[in-house]
Amino acid sequence: MEIIKGGVTAAKGFEAASTAAGIKYKDRTDMALVYSQVPCEVAGTFTTNVVKAAPVKWDRQVVDSGKKAQAVIVNSGIANACTGAEGFGYCKDTADAAAEALGVSADGVLIGSTGVIGKQMPIDRLVAGIKVLAGKKNDSIENGTEAAKAIMTTDTCEKELAVTIQVGDKTVTIGGMAKGSGMIHPNMCTMLAFITTDAVITKEALQKALSEDVGDTYNMISVDGDTSTNDTVVLLANGMAENKTIEYGTEEYEEFKNALHVINEYLAKKIAGDGEGATALFEVKVVGGESVEQAKVLAKSIVCSNLTKTAIAGHDANWGRILCAMGYSGAQFDPEQVDLFFESKAGKIQIIENGTAVDYSEEEATKILSESEVTAIADVKMGDAQATAWGCDLTHGYIDINADYRS
Amino acid sequence: MEIIKGGVTAAKGFEAASTAAGIKYKDRTDMALVYSQVPCEVAGTFTTNVVKAAPVKWDRQVVDSGKKAQAVIVNSGIANACTGAEGFGYCKDTADAAAEALGVSADGVLIGSTGVIGKQMPIDRLVAGIKVLAGKKNDSIENGTEAAKAIMTTDTCEKELAVTIQVGDKTVTIGGMAKGSGMIHPNMCTMLAFITTDAVITKEALQKALSEDVGDTYNMISVDGDTSTNDTVVLLANGMAENKTIEYGTEEYEEFKNALHVINEYLAKKIAGDGEGATALFEVKVVGGESVEQAKVLAKSIVCSNLTKTAIAGHDANWGRILCAMGYSGAQFDPEQVDLFFESKAGKIQIIENGTAVDYSEEEATKILSESEVTAIADVKMGDAQATAWGCDLTHGYIDINADYRS
Repeated sequence: MEIIKGGVTAAKGFEAASTAAGIKYKDRTDMALVYSQVPCEVAGTFTTNVVKAAPVKWDRQVVDSGKKAQAVIVNSGIANACTGAEGFGYCKDTADAAAEALGVSADGVLIGSTGVIGKQMPIDRLVAGIKVLAGKKNDSIENGTEAAKAIMTTDTCEKELAVTIQVGDKTVTIGGMAKGSGMIHPNMCTMLAFITTDAVITKEALQKALSEDVGDTYNMISVDGDTSTNDTVVLLANGMAENKTIEYGTEEYEEFKNALHVINEYLAKKIAGDGEGATALFEVKVVGGESVEQAKVLAKSIVCSNLTKTAIAGHDANWGRILCAMGYSGAQFDPEQVDLFFESKAGKIQIIENGTAVDYSEEEATKILSESEVTAIADVKMGDAQATAWGCDLTHGYIDINADYRS
Repeated sequence: MEIIKGGVTAAKGFEAASTAAGIKYKDRTDMALVYSQVPCEVAGTFTTNVVKAAPVKWDRQVVDSGKKAQAVIVNSGIANACTGAEGFGYCKDTADAAAEALGVSADGVLIGSTGVIGKQMPIDRLVAGIKVLAGKKNDSIENGTEAAKAIMTTDTCEKELAVTIQVGDKTVTIGGMAKGSGMIHPNMCTMLAFITTDAVITKEALQKALSEDVGDTYNMISVDGDTSTNDTVVLLANGMAENKTIEYGTEEYEEFKNALHVINEYLAKKIAGDGEGATALFEVKVVGGESVEQAKVLAKSIVCSNLTKTAIAGHDANWGRILCAMGYSGAQFDPEQVDLFFESKAGKIQIIENGTAVDYSEEEATKILSESEVTAIADVKMGDAQATAWGCDLTHGYIDINADYRS
């Protein structure tokens, strides 16, 4: 496997475009198109929130229909959630407009929206934007990156990655882009991720590869504990790599899934590290777990704790808050067996041995915790299972962004 | 039932004292004593955190022993949590010192600690403090209030209340004090509450009255979603009102429980409204629920949402975040049936009808949301059940307090 330049346009036959349609933001792009030259197998995972945005309902329908997809229309600024029948109707209008502008089937148009909940979509501006996108699309790396920028809301940077693997004598490429910064606690977040591949792969293998990996990647990040109404990951495979079909359960499947995992983990970590107001990516590894499920519950509880996150913001090795968050997670363990370490580029330090503090240097701990990527490692000494979760620190920036987001 | 002046010293035969023992804070009181002139029946509820502070383990043992209790020693500054066998040993030392200074049985001494996790207790200062407390104790209202002040950490005000009820021809008094501001998400929080009554009541009735009410009061508040290692509510009954014994299941029991509820709800709301950095008490009522359990899950999910809490800080009627938090709560409901209202001293306004926004005035909504007590009412239209949860807004103050709490 090789990491290459690019994102959604890295795989053969995929094109992208972006435009400033004036949906809500001023003076920036706010619509993106991802288009495949040929129809694609499509897999998707969506928010588990009972309140589902209109585009989530629409995409679910496309994925479940078994039909092929060929285009994705994404807008930032308005989420099209809690908008009733009117909002869902705008999904149909969007698909119809894209079908006409691109010469594809409306049944194969996926939609992603992110932004304010409850506002209706300015459909005329959206439709006008689609026409502009159709005229500008191409398969350049630059257009992929511009698309990744157009879908940002409070994100501070675009998020994209691409990798290649060999399947037989063919090179298969997988590329993706994502956005997400607040309302991030995916269980399937206001995170959106769009991944493209030119692999020839069955729909079953495509959906399984995505579904199996989401639990270890996007679902292991949290910015604020709020599971969005719009979380969507869509994976499109157009087959233009001309490899032997990847079937579920084969060696090639495992290799494809590993490559997809690299994309998903990278994008998930980028979302966590770019959490609203964040100054640090906070990684938590729980090792020595009795089961992966237990290790996940413990890791997520730490990464979600407001008190732990503010301590990270203060570069403070306040380990008591970490043990406290493990304790209320719901998972069972013996607090008096726990070892805890902090690690970053600046070094590694043990803080707790068997549940109580060792004689560590606060100065050294603060140095380690002052890096932009910080890891806490908790060993519960019950078995071999482990899990990793990713979050960020909780800062004044988060308050600034969210105390007045709508205006 | 009548609300009267006072707190833990309101009921007959209860005395209190406070002192500045130099546990951690400078220039303020940090130890409190609650003492009964005669031994008391005792009921308690404690944190469900797997990581339990030493004083929680100690008190649990006292309550479970069936023996009577006569004194409570509380310190602020150090939580005595994650302190191993050494920390538990200091509980024994504390009880022994109190027994000697007060002439009571060490088996009947309860202990409460709140503050930094992981630091060992300066036991010499604690023991010296106990001697001072024993010399200063009396049954004045003022000493009760001073005790309520001494147990504060990041709290900005003391929290106490007392009520009287008639049981037969006797007046029974119940009084209580509590502290709590951060690490507040009681499931049984770092909240401590100490409630005293002169009622004659069986131990069974006392424990049931407390256990049944905690689920509707302390367990329905949240400041930051972090369930503490030290949460403790202790209820002492010394029998000095000389009423006919209150038995579980009787009319007198119901009246006692109602009076206890008034104390518990008042103290719980005071803790929520005094959340770290909070500028507003945020109350959430879910009505029209299918079951009380469902209504509780929905109300708690809203009150715990960082995004909703920052919106309240910004006086922003960002109702989409409320619907979102209901949606990820785990409870089932139809988003397209939900009505939502905001209410405060400044008025009441409907924001959502059947899942989508009504044409309301943002200006009026902001006015309503600018009060120091704000209520959101969500009607899910499924039945008659309802529940109320209490929290606070999430502000820069919370970050200031917690990014550097230990120093």
